[in-house]
Amino acid sequence: MSNADGLDAVVILNDGDPFLDSAFWYLTEQMGGTFESSLAVVGKDGSLDVIVSVLEEESAMSGKGDVRVYHTREERDGYLRDALKGAVNVGFNIHNASYSMVEYVKKTVSGINIKDASATISSTVSVKDKKEIELTRNACRISSQVAKEIPDMLSEGMTEKEAAFRMDIRMRELGGTGNAFDTISAFGANSSKPHHSPTGYGIKKGDTALFDFGTKYERYCSDMTRTVFLSRPPDMLERAYETVLEAQTAGIERYADGAPAKDADLAAREVIDRSEFKGRFIHSFGHGIGMEVHQDISISPRSEHILREGNIVSAEPGIYIPGVGGIRIEDTCLITKNGCERLTDFDRRITFV
Amino acid sequence: MSNADGLDAVVILNDGDPFLDSAFWYLTEQMGGTFESSLAVVGKDGSLDVIVSVLEEESAMSGKGDVRVYHTREERDGYLRDALKGAVNVGFNIHNASYSMVEYVKKTVSGINIKDASATISSTVSVKDKKEIELTRNACRISSQVAKEIPDMLSEGMTEKEAAFRMDIRMRELGGTGNAFDTISAFGANSSKPHHSPTGYGIKKGDTALFDFGTKYERYCSDMTRTVFLSRPPDMLERAYETVLEAQTAGIERYADGAPAKDADLAAREVIDRSEFKGRFIHSFGHGIGMEVHQDISISPRSEHILREGNIVSAEPGIYIPGVGGIRIEDTCLITKNGCERLTDFDRRITFV
Repeated sequence: MSNADGLDAVVILNDGDPFLDSAFWYLTEQMGGTFESSLAVVGKDGSLDVIVSVLEEESAMSGKGDVRVYHTREERDGYLRDALKGAVNVGFNIHNASYSMVEYVKKTVSGINIKDASATISSTVSVKDKKEIELTRNACRISSQVAKEIPDMLSEGMTEKEAAFRMDIRMRELGGTGNAFDTISAFGANSSKPHHSPTGYGIKKGDTALFDFGTKYERYCSDMTRTVFLSRPPDMLERAYETVLEAQTAGIERYADGAPAKDADLAAREVIDRSEFKGRFIHSFGHGIGMEVHQDISISPRSEHILREGNIVSAEPGIYIPGVGGIRIEDTCLITKNGCERLTDFDRRITFV
Repeated sequence: MSNADGLDAVVILNDGDPFLDSAFWYLTEQMGGTFESSLAVVGKDGSLDVIVSVLEEESAMSGKGDVRVYHTREERDGYLRDALKGAVNVGFNIHNASYSMVEYVKKTVSGINIKDASATISSTVSVKDKKEIELTRNACRISSQVAKEIPDMLSEGMTEKEAAFRMDIRMRELGGTGNAFDTISAFGANSSKPHHSPTGYGIKKGDTALFDFGTKYERYCSDMTRTVFLSRPPDMLERAYETVLEAQTAGIERYADGAPAKDADLAAREVIDRSEFKGRFIHSFGHGIGMEVHQDISISPRSEHILREGNIVSAEPGIYIPGVGGIRIEDTCLITKNGCERLTDFDRRITFV
């Protein structure tokens, strides 16, 4: 991580699980451990101090950085003061640090100014290197295989919970390390809720079946959505499907190194807003993907991010009609020099099971 | 949630996933949704304002509270100012809120004082009602069944990753909603790392096999650890096992409504520290368990918590010998009027597979 913006140091903080900052693993290149209450301090000179409890001693030693193992809180305080000696302007990853941990640093090390370093951290973390791309590629390969199996899996009466369960198992069987997030499996009218949690509802003929899912491979995530129909749905939903597909294509065409992220959102939104479904695309076109499934890049009408080669982002327009159903099509995309590569793969043509 | 401590309001904050506060679901009694960037405000009078994005509108409507749906950031700001009208001393769950979200509230609503309400929130959330206990009981029943199957599952050469995978699948097959945390499966010398992540290491005769795992049932977690041996291990590890078992029993005997939490830790620690394994118990005896697998109750030598009927806590002493192996035995326990009930169940006697 570069230490720009005139900061004397950048501090990465973990509170209790799940309030852990993936930047900690990015910096230490650890694959394991939980590292609750641990800290990493990046100095102006690129030095890396890693302050961990004795619980993590053996794990920490296998990673990068100067590891300091504390046995008591006082020892932790001392290591922190050492690591920040002379520092005045100290950057924090303020979206991924608990208020209490930032306050702890402020109280423990006198005379420091708290600065927001999240943009710097995010722009570093969001450009993936070869190894990170390879791990993400593996995660995408696994979830794509599951997406391809959806038509064979689905049958009348199958519940949302059962479908989600089967998909989760398949991702693990195919080598996934664990879900990237709780699988969304939404049938019929439930699919109009973008973040629906699976229920005992059994799918009926004419229903939409929307699946938003992803796996981790080591620590890296995939994220994709496939929507199919059980038999023929109301005409309106077929038209919505074609509109979403067209919107996704229009958005993805804007993905390239150097392109403003918002262009993709606006291109997709234009397709939907000139159709009968105007106003039904109620979220952003995409987000960054990495060790967390939602990383800092936002691909929205207001985004100021400029895409960079090595960014990994979702492309996921949707149309949601309360009481009727919703359609979403999502890929995980790698931004390249001249465009983008879809890392996920499935038949995106309208599918009637 | 009671609103004590002279606070005018308590604000619960969600940033991006995974920086979500389970207190949000506790208050709204939601089972689903993601609710990123959502807020809940508890007023002095017990009122509950729930401010969510349009993405969560349908899900939010199924829960408790006065739901306000925002379409733009400005709308969110307005709802927040309304909800905090006249409030001066405002409490936050500072361990479970990101620094940026607390700062957002501070900037958006002028004239408020930020107070730490985490102790109040934690003492409310940590006393489980009948329904919460029932959900936890289900989670414990599922993981206990898997613990009982460990001897049949394990065979020479099986890797840590494969064992973890099989256990995860079994928990889902038995009705679990998903892992409560990443399963720890640690063989041989790896078991001396309390937070070891499973590797491709295959188990050999004489190895310790330590499994720390749990499932969610709906949103509630179980947490347990079973340690067995493949054939006979070095004598020292057998002695360590018996010492840990004795320590767990001694600690659990101190669990009861009204008892200082630290008494259980000290009782268990005394057993280990008077043995040849003095100083090898390098973590706390236990922690609270609820919608997060680590909730705020700490059962450590320094804990000031007084146990209450309805608290759900772990009991997990361990002995760790770097380069040789580690032993941990853990149950999820419900504090009762006169003692405690172990919600998890397995054969705790020393087991040679």
